[in-house]
Amino acid sequence: MNLGQVARLLAGFTLFFSLAQLIPLAFALYAEERGATAFDPVNGFTASFAIGLAMSLLLWMAGRARRNDDFFRRESLAVVGLAWVVAGSLGALPFEWSGAITNTADALFESISGLTTTGASILGSGDNPKVEDLPQSLLLWRSLLQWIGGVGVIFVFLVLLPTMGVTGKNLLSSEQVGVAAGDLRPRMRDLARMLLKVYLFLTIAEVLLLRLAGMESWFDAICHSFTTISTAGFSTKNSSIAAFDSLGIELIIIVFMFLGGCNFALLFTVISNRFRAPNMPVRVAELRTYIYLVLGLIVAMTLILRLWGFQLPDDVQGGVRDYGSIWQCLRDASFNVMSILTSTGYSSANYETWPKAALILLVFCMFVGACSGSTAGGMKVLRLMVSVKLVTNMLRLFVRPKSVQRVKVGQNVVAEAAITSIAALILMWFIGVAIGTMALALDERLDILSCFTASVSMMMCTGPAITEVTSALAPNNLGGIDLGPAGGYGDLYGWSKVLMSFQMILGRLELLVPAAMFLPALWKR
Amino acid sequence: MNLGQVARLLAGFTLFFSLAQLIPLAFALYAEERGATAFDPVNGFTASFAIGLAMSLLLWMAGRARRNDDFFRRESLAVVGLAWVVAGSLGALPFEWSGAITNTADALFESISGLTTTGASILGSGDNPKVEDLPQSLLLWRSLLQWIGGVGVIFVFLVLLPTMGVTGKNLLSSEQVGVAAGDLRPRMRDLARMLLKVYLFLTIAEVLLLRLAGMESWFDAICHSFTTISTAGFSTKNSSIAAFDSLGIELIIIVFMFLGGCNFALLFTVISNRFRAPNMPVRVAELRTYIYLVLGLIVAMTLILRLWGFQLPDDVQGGVRDYGSIWQCLRDASFNVMSILTSTGYSSANYETWPKAALILLVFCMFVGACSGSTAGGMKVLRLMVSVKLVTNMLRLFVRPKSVQRVKVGQNVVAEAAITSIAALILMWFIGVAIGTMALALDERLDILSCFTASVSMMMCTGPAITEVTSALAPNNLGGIDLGPAGGYGDLYGWSKVLMSFQMILGRLELLVPAAMFLPALWKR
Repeated sequence: MNLGQVARLLAGFTLFFSLAQLIPLAFALYAEERGATAFDPVNGFTASFAIGLAMSLLLWMAGRARRNDDFFRRESLAVVGLAWVVAGSLGALPFEWSGAITNTADALFESISGLTTTGASILGSGDNPKVEDLPQSLLLWRSLLQWIGGVGVIFVFLVLLPTMGVTGKNLLSSEQVGVAAGDLRPRMRDLARMLLKVYLFLTIAEVLLLRLAGMESWFDAICHSFTTISTAGFSTKNSSIAAFDSLGIELIIIVFMFLGGCNFALLFTVISNRFRAPNMPVRVAELRTYIYLVLGLIVAMTLILRLWGFQLPDDVQGGVRDYGSIWQCLRDASFNVMSILTSTGYSSANYETWPKAALILLVFCMFVGACSGSTAGGMKVLRLMVSVKLVTNMLRLFVRPKSVQRVKVGQNVVAEAAITSIAALILMWFIGVAIGTMALALDERLDILSCFTASVSMMMCTGPAITEVTSALAPNNLGGIDLGPAGGYGDLYGWSKVLMSFQMILGRLELLVPAAMFLPALWKR
Repeated sequence: MNLGQVARLLAGFTLFFSLAQLIPLAFALYAEERGATAFDPVNGFTASFAIGLAMSLLLWMAGRARRNDDFFRRESLAVVGLAWVVAGSLGALPFEWSGAITNTADALFESISGLTTTGASILGSGDNPKVEDLPQSLLLWRSLLQWIGGVGVIFVFLVLLPTMGVTGKNLLSSEQVGVAAGDLRPRMRDLARMLLKVYLFLTIAEVLLLRLAGMESWFDAICHSFTTISTAGFSTKNSSIAAFDSLGIELIIIVFMFLGGCNFALLFTVISNRFRAPNMPVRVAELRTYIYLVLGLIVAMTLILRLWGFQLPDDVQGGVRDYGSIWQCLRDASFNVMSILTSTGYSSANYETWPKAALILLVFCMFVGACSGSTAGGMKVLRLMVSVKLVTNMLRLFVRPKSVQRVKVGQNVVAEAAITSIAALILMWFIGVAIGTMALALDERLDILSCFTASVSMMMCTGPAITEVTSALAPNNLGGIDLGPAGGYGDLYGWSKVLMSFQMILGRLELLVPAAMFLPALWKR
């Protein structure tokens, strides 16, 4: 392990991340937020910027002492893993030092939830202020954190990991996710620039469309665009998208959540003529399954709502939702299925009051996620396709042991090693969910469903969990803690939040990179 | 597919199964049960015996018409899959025609739950009588069904499947479970006889020990011995083993549940000198892990009960259970962990009132099961060992892609194809649990935890599910239905019971055989 190189790269990253804070700082100064509320964002951003700069300088000096230009796979993994932790910690400082979120665990949770594009929030619960009570610069920072996190994920999975030689005989799941190695190494910079262009283009397009659809302020449009395309889900309203109650806005967000759930290399191929995504047939096959899945899930959810969900109470809207109308069912089903499937986590209705079958379908959506190489969390459609084919092949092989059964995706045969590693990764995800559920259950105020769905939501980067409500609006659990879209994570204990922050990083980096941090083999010289 | 052979073999099996009913019939006549209660078991057994005989004759005649001595793998699979369905249906007749269980779905559920050694019961809930109100001959039949199911499972997984050439290049999970093929084909009959000897020896030993420990009637001792060694869990008491409230009886049952969870080929090796179980190192490694797992889980459960479970209400005992005493914690933890881990499903306390972390640990136990080649359900320790090693190897490979990582169990390298199929099988189990949860959730009276644990309990052949209780003894769900050890499945709708019966057969035959029944490839000529 070349610690010098790791330190230098982290120094660069920290500098970039600190500079990003100048945007909300400038906004706070421009909007003259100082003194306008009880919180002081100018103070928070300035102090955090200074700390970031100092840290960057220290890292650079530490790295400079041991100059050595060898840079390998293990160093990259270490940088990726550490960058998320460093950024998560630095990102929390403005929240805490502006006085908005006084509890350190809460600030850390909010920051990591932002960067990992999870979108779980402690605001509006516990001792924390509501989203609307925060200065706008801090809301901008929340959205910006998610936007940066989204770019980061695309960079790691479409540019960095594939060029690190995770290929050939030792082919791992990330190879399937990324673009083919070899021919791309020299074009790494180019590729990163291309993907950033798509990302920027989609962001700006959504801002304009949201304004056209009637979102009143530029601020809301920009913030929501930042958190839609990164399929992250922080909103500037405590009741999320339900606050706007506008079909137009919901439709636009549905489209951009869908796009955020597509493979970005494929999106770029569609937009530009001069680029062709590697493994095109595989990508296209995945996209096709993703589209069928979205349509199938929306139809199923609409039917469930129509058949079992007649007139449900809805505390987000503060009234009753009439699911006697098939259009209302379709509208709510489309938005919330799309939101959970792409791991965004927006809500346009409090789905906790939905029929139980609907809740289980939403948990299924959490697990699935969208396409590989997208900003979405979850296990990804491609991995599920391989798993399902693996199972059906095993059955056929069981009946006719002499037949040859291969796992194919879009005419391409998936290598045996890739199949094994995909299966192992899915098992790892299940183990992570199980351990998280068990640990969260030590908080005796929660019911088991809340513990389980919170653990799933963190490991899949979704955001809200599901607390079952027996009577109209009373959560089922003893403490009356609601972890769903109408509630928040603020009431949980500090250790729960730290654990969940760790789960978010695990899920966001698809387990391998963060888990490798704990192997001594990574750090050996 | 040679349908003639299939019919002939099924005819033989049906004859054997019908003859087995003569035992409870003889008991009913001896005890002069006719007219003693509202139910008429003599009528039930006689009619059912006659139907069985007729069916056997019809099958034999149908098979005779197409005599052909080719007998292959696919025919065996078909016989195994169909035998469970035939026996499950025939076994239900005495319950229904004696007038004890009037609902057909209920009778079918009880019979299949018996044969698959699940132990889930509809007695004492819905419109059904309590266990104690049934004539003893029917209770004997319930226990005998489980005892036969236990023998059946051992025969299928230790004798039949391994000699069917599930081996070599196309090595599947069942090969790992069974004994090596090739050298055993001529000894198939011998092997079956040996295993039956062990099974009989353990059954008789437990009967005697239970009597010594103070179980008052021979009847209870025999019935409980039948259902312990098959790790099945039907009891002659509505409140299960809690009814005896005897430390001695609990200890003996713990030991025999443990033995029932061991590989029977290995047990025979230990008892006899002239036999050596194939794959000895693998078997021994699995047994070692099983022992560590049992000890670890008991310690963890004892600690959870001691730390969070001070003075819990217990409706099985009708009083309060004082978990201030570490001995009480250890006693209840040992019995119930052992019972759930081996998928027996007895209970010595109503664990639904235990702390949430304890419940999650019990759900974990359901998933795991005991050793392969035992009568226990669940995924089996060996498969979990392979899965865990697969995950850790993948991590090591991720950090050092050029290293060579092999999955070893007891010094033996597990073949790549076996690893893939184990992973696929585990995924299949998860899919089965998920679909079951979703379907059961259409019953709006249940809460999600009940749906999930009932689905797990069926797929793992455990027996009781877990319904969360908020206040003292009131189940959390709206319908007030308790699917736990103190409740029963009688209140569910008919379609739920049919679905769950199917899940039990799926889980008992480890998915592949029943699932293959639905592949056209199995039935092709």
